[in-house]
Amino acid sequence: MTRLQLFDKIKEKESFLCVGLDPDLSRIPAHLLETEDPVFEFNKAIIDATLPYAVAYKPNTAFYESLGSKGWESLEKTVDYLPGNVLKIADAKRGDIGNSSKQYADAFFKRMNFDAITISPYMGEDSVTPFFEYDNKWVILLASTSNAGSLDFQDLMVDHKSEKLYERVIRKSSTWGSKKNMMYVIGATRVETLVTIRALLPEHFLLIPGVGAQGGDMELVCRYGLNKHGGLLINSSRGIIYAGDGENFADDVASAAKKLQHQMAEVIMNQKYW
Amino acid sequence: MTRLQLFDKIKEKESFLCVGLDPDLSRIPAHLLETEDPVFEFNKAIIDATLPYAVAYKPNTAFYESLGSKGWESLEKTVDYLPGNVLKIADAKRGDIGNSSKQYADAFFKRMNFDAITISPYMGEDSVTPFFEYDNKWVILLASTSNAGSLDFQDLMVDHKSEKLYERVIRKSSTWGSKKNMMYVIGATRVETLVTIRALLPEHFLLIPGVGAQGGDMELVCRYGLNKHGGLLINSSRGIIYAGDGENFADDVASAAKKLQHQMAEVIMNQKYW
Repeated sequence: MTRLQLFDKIKEKESFLCVGLDPDLSRIPAHLLETEDPVFEFNKAIIDATLPYAVAYKPNTAFYESLGSKGWESLEKTVDYLPGNVLKIADAKRGDIGNSSKQYADAFFKRMNFDAITISPYMGEDSVTPFFEYDNKWVILLASTSNAGSLDFQDLMVDHKSEKLYERVIRKSSTWGSKKNMMYVIGATRVETLVTIRALLPEHFLLIPGVGAQGGDMELVCRYGLNKHGGLLINSSRGIIYAGDGENFADDVASAAKKLQHQMAEVIMNQKYW
Repeated sequence: MTRLQLFDKIKEKESFLCVGLDPDLSRIPAHLLETEDPVFEFNKAIIDATLPYAVAYKPNTAFYESLGSKGWESLEKTVDYLPGNVLKIADAKRGDIGNSSKQYADAFFKRMNFDAITISPYMGEDSVTPFFEYDNKWVILLASTSNAGSLDFQDLMVDHKSEKLYERVIRKSSTWGSKKNMMYVIGATRVETLVTIRALLPEHFLLIPGVGAQGGDMELVCRYGLNKHGGLLINSSRGIIYAGDGENFADDVASAAKKLQHQMAEVIMNQKYW
């Protein structure tokens, strides 16, 4: 999926919502546990319910791997089920020497039909560039994450200059690719960083997790994060997928997604970003 | 597997060799491609051939994921096949917010019976500590890696002090666990760092990839890395597993592992480390 195609979808749906597909068997509605593939049935219902309101979906591989090869099968089926006109993000947080990153690129971009993958920057350029060998695919690099541990290293000042590690990561890595094949993960709980980040990356898309269960404020994120090409994907996982329970859980899931989409549509209209 | 059990194996086998199980279908001997699970058959032959010479095995998840859920099954079968008295390392380079890292810990330590997993430090403490909830399991944290990209961020000076990022990663993270549940990845191509690292971590085990195909020098690594509790695991992947071809490939694989083990036995004897 190209940058323009993504922006078109954002305008069409008046939404920059990404739905995090993090299925936890202990939280899935009980009636689905009797099916042959509860994880896939759950995801299918979530996708059907949220498709009018979302432009991207982001399965987190951790929740599939914890179920073994059967979980990996559910992941494959989920990607296959997602329609072609949404951005399919593997939240995998991979990154290895070039020889191995090439295998990860094959796994997520060839074997499975993901459009994008989250990558950790710690191992540097040759751990990232193998993913660029695929056209119209995206690396979404961790920059400033939403968890408490993000302060341990990401905010360290580097190189005797007044630059933080995550700023250096952004500045350096943005030369490896372009706004057409790179996005960055910026935690919604760290809104104050968005101003600095937009100065470094005026045109890139940012993927913002941490709205909802992790406590981020959507309005603030929009104010500092949106740009005239869209520029934002806001992810909600637990706040949407566990919004309901029982046989009609998908109704509450749809409502939760719709509510976020309405907030986004209002922001778009009021701020006249495009 | 505990630290003492690992050290006992090192003394018994006079070896601190880790065999990297990175099966690439394009390099596996042709006759195995006709079997139902070529990756597992290849691994089984490698394990049988190298078991007298190795104390640890390290499948890199990238090479299994690139084969989809079938590859993940091969990984599960490989871990099951490995005997209990070797250290089973998932070279997975994971790391996510606590909620997700918990799922990865379940995937590798409960669903599969790995003893250890490699983790990227970028997301900080809460991305690492969920793995410590399992007893006698290990986090092997990336510190100073063997690839060219390691220079991009790991060597940056941090916090206006004369400390590099990887040194800070080591110093800070070593307080999260102990020498009993943490090891560190130090690339063999960066031997000059071993002196500094041993000063920070006199007693921890270090996992050293990059000997062989990546060009690291084993003798130098031993000189600066070994300590009186063993303290080193030296990994070789491509140098061992692709040492042979044809139906008798395992003979050459055994020879390659034996040669490295002999070098290690000599170092142990000459240097009288224990």
